[in-house]
Amino acid sequence: MTGSPSGARERPPLDELVAGVRGGDRNCIARSITLLESTQRDDKLAGQELLAALLPSSGSAIRVGISGVPGVGKSTFIDAMGVLLTAEGQRVGVLAVDPSSARTFGSVLGDKTRMDRLAADPGAFIRPSPSAGTLGGVARATRESIVVLEAAGFDVVLVETVGVGQSEVAVSRMVDTFLLLAMSRMGDQLQGIKRGIIELADVIAVNKADGAHEAEARHAAGELSGALRILGGPGSGWRIPVLTCSALEERGLAEVWQAVLEHRSYMQAEGLLDIKRREQAVSWMWATIRDRLDSDFHADPAVRGLLGDVEAHVASGAVAPGRGAELLMRAFRPDGGRP
Amino acid sequence: MTGSPSGARERPPLDELVAGVRGGDRNCIARSITLLESTQRDDKLAGQELLAALLPSSGSAIRVGISGVPGVGKSTFIDAMGVLLTAEGQRVGVLAVDPSSARTFGSVLGDKTRMDRLAADPGAFIRPSPSAGTLGGVARATRESIVVLEAAGFDVVLVETVGVGQSEVAVSRMVDTFLLLAMSRMGDQLQGIKRGIIELADVIAVNKADGAHEAEARHAAGELSGALRILGGPGSGWRIPVLTCSALEERGLAEVWQAVLEHRSYMQAEGLLDIKRREQAVSWMWATIRDRLDSDFHADPAVRGLLGDVEAHVASGAVAPGRGAELLMRAFRPDGGRP
Repeated sequence: MTGSPSGARERPPLDELVAGVRGGDRNCIARSITLLESTQRDDKLAGQELLAALLPSSGSAIRVGISGVPGVGKSTFIDAMGVLLTAEGQRVGVLAVDPSSARTFGSVLGDKTRMDRLAADPGAFIRPSPSAGTLGGVARATRESIVVLEAAGFDVVLVETVGVGQSEVAVSRMVDTFLLLAMSRMGDQLQGIKRGIIELADVIAVNKADGAHEAEARHAAGELSGALRILGGPGSGWRIPVLTCSALEERGLAEVWQAVLEHRSYMQAEGLLDIKRREQAVSWMWATIRDRLDSDFHADPAVRGLLGDVEAHVASGAVAPGRGAELLMRAFRPDGGRP
Repeated sequence: MTGSPSGARERPPLDELVAGVRGGDRNCIARSITLLESTQRDDKLAGQELLAALLPSSGSAIRVGISGVPGVGKSTFIDAMGVLLTAEGQRVGVLAVDPSSARTFGSVLGDKTRMDRLAADPGAFIRPSPSAGTLGGVARATRESIVVLEAAGFDVVLVETVGVGQSEVAVSRMVDTFLLLAMSRMGDQLQGIKRGIIELADVIAVNKADGAHEAEARHAAGELSGALRILGGPGSGWRIPVLTCSALEERGLAEVWQAVLEHRSYMQAEGLLDIKRREQAVSWMWATIRDRLDSDFHADPAVRGLLGDVEAHVASGAVAPGRGAELLMRAFRPDGGRP
């Protein structure tokens, strides 16, 4: 079942919401997430209170980011992987970060029918990307939704992202393991690997190793593995496995999940998982602060009055970037920050 | 000759400084850069006035970023490349971005003797990294120093960076072409390529192709070239050349420079250089604003009073990142940005 948005006005008192989430009530989970997605000031305060109450029961899920360019088969993969996990008795939550969804009417998880089986699975809870706000705001709401799902007893949280920009970095900062999906098509050329995203990957799976394409996918995985060896791995010493799978034919999925678990075990054994989560928490606080400063700055009437002209003059070279910054900063903080 | 810092107090009037820079006077160039590096409020205002006067005569140099991990031979490379260019009659300025130089006493260009020949070359001007400030501040000063060198008639500006972190991103946003130095040692393994930096490279040179290591370097370059092909190139359609060179034996340097020029010609022919520079100017303004907001935030007494406790509670999981951000934002802007 998919969590449906509901107005904050109708929401039950916070203690009922907290008890409902802890008891796994789907309606309470959905309403809690809606509250965290709200950009209204009162909702934000209530949301932070809710989070403070849920935090002690959070932290236990396996958090996995899943990325890859459009067309790589993310939805089919998550649908098949999710069903595999719920069949094992695990409860699976699926979230998404896609700041473009407001404009494109939801490319990530927006079309519920793309995850038919998982959407009908009582062991799963699917929530589309918040469809309004900056990347920072969307990512914050998603990160806080992880807390809700964990407090509700979900064992696995999958966070989907669209694979074309900065949202991957945001997602990598909220998960334990980042799984990158790629595919091989048009000869041997790998599709779906962007240079900026490869550095975030902990596990890579070449999807669409279907039928006649299986050998091609294996070849591409071998080449990619070699390329990663040449380029050097992450600082942690973890060697990134490159697997093949077919989400469509449901082959290789158990092995991909095994690699995710091995990465997590490696991090735990080295004491890196705790460090990662602590660092993620602090870095998320700072990301939230930067996002708030940025949105406050853009919303400032004095800044808005100048912005168009200043940007045009800076772009044309007539005004130095430092001078443009000074002009706008002076509009934002007329006293220069001096009391 | 190396530009030496001089106190802002002794500086000549701005119009003399501007005329001196335009006439190529080394003392005026050095003093202008010192002014731009200053963090004092009065100096900053004077610096922006200076820049406004110099901007119309800037923009004509070939701007090249040079990166690579410590030990890859950046100084030897810049020394040899610089002498090669000045021998052709070109005037070469060398700047650096290394925010760690205040702590490490100048790993980048700090040791003047590492560029013996270029330091004594009348056609060259070498300036170490500003040794104080945030990355944003250091990078801003370096970017503005490019304007000074261009107004002084320098044909080429090389910007060195240390190859281990975020300063590469900052440098990539102020140059036309980003040259990454790598090397091959310990078997075939390439050294000096970090996954996060590879995406910034426009040209790659495997250095230290010296004597017996030449074949090894060529093999490594071939492997790297193949890896880049698999991973896909930048969106511009430019195919990244991977060359070998020996800065020590002064071989292959002309070819590396040729590749830099070819990248620049490609950008110009496609109309991408103008677009890049316009975008760089605006993105630099925003980077400066973010840096200012960040430093104002950290300098705020109310924020400083809370910061230690809030960070500790967020790291331990006792306080949600969003709540921590809210607490600090409320300290920074008690009125919540409302007038």
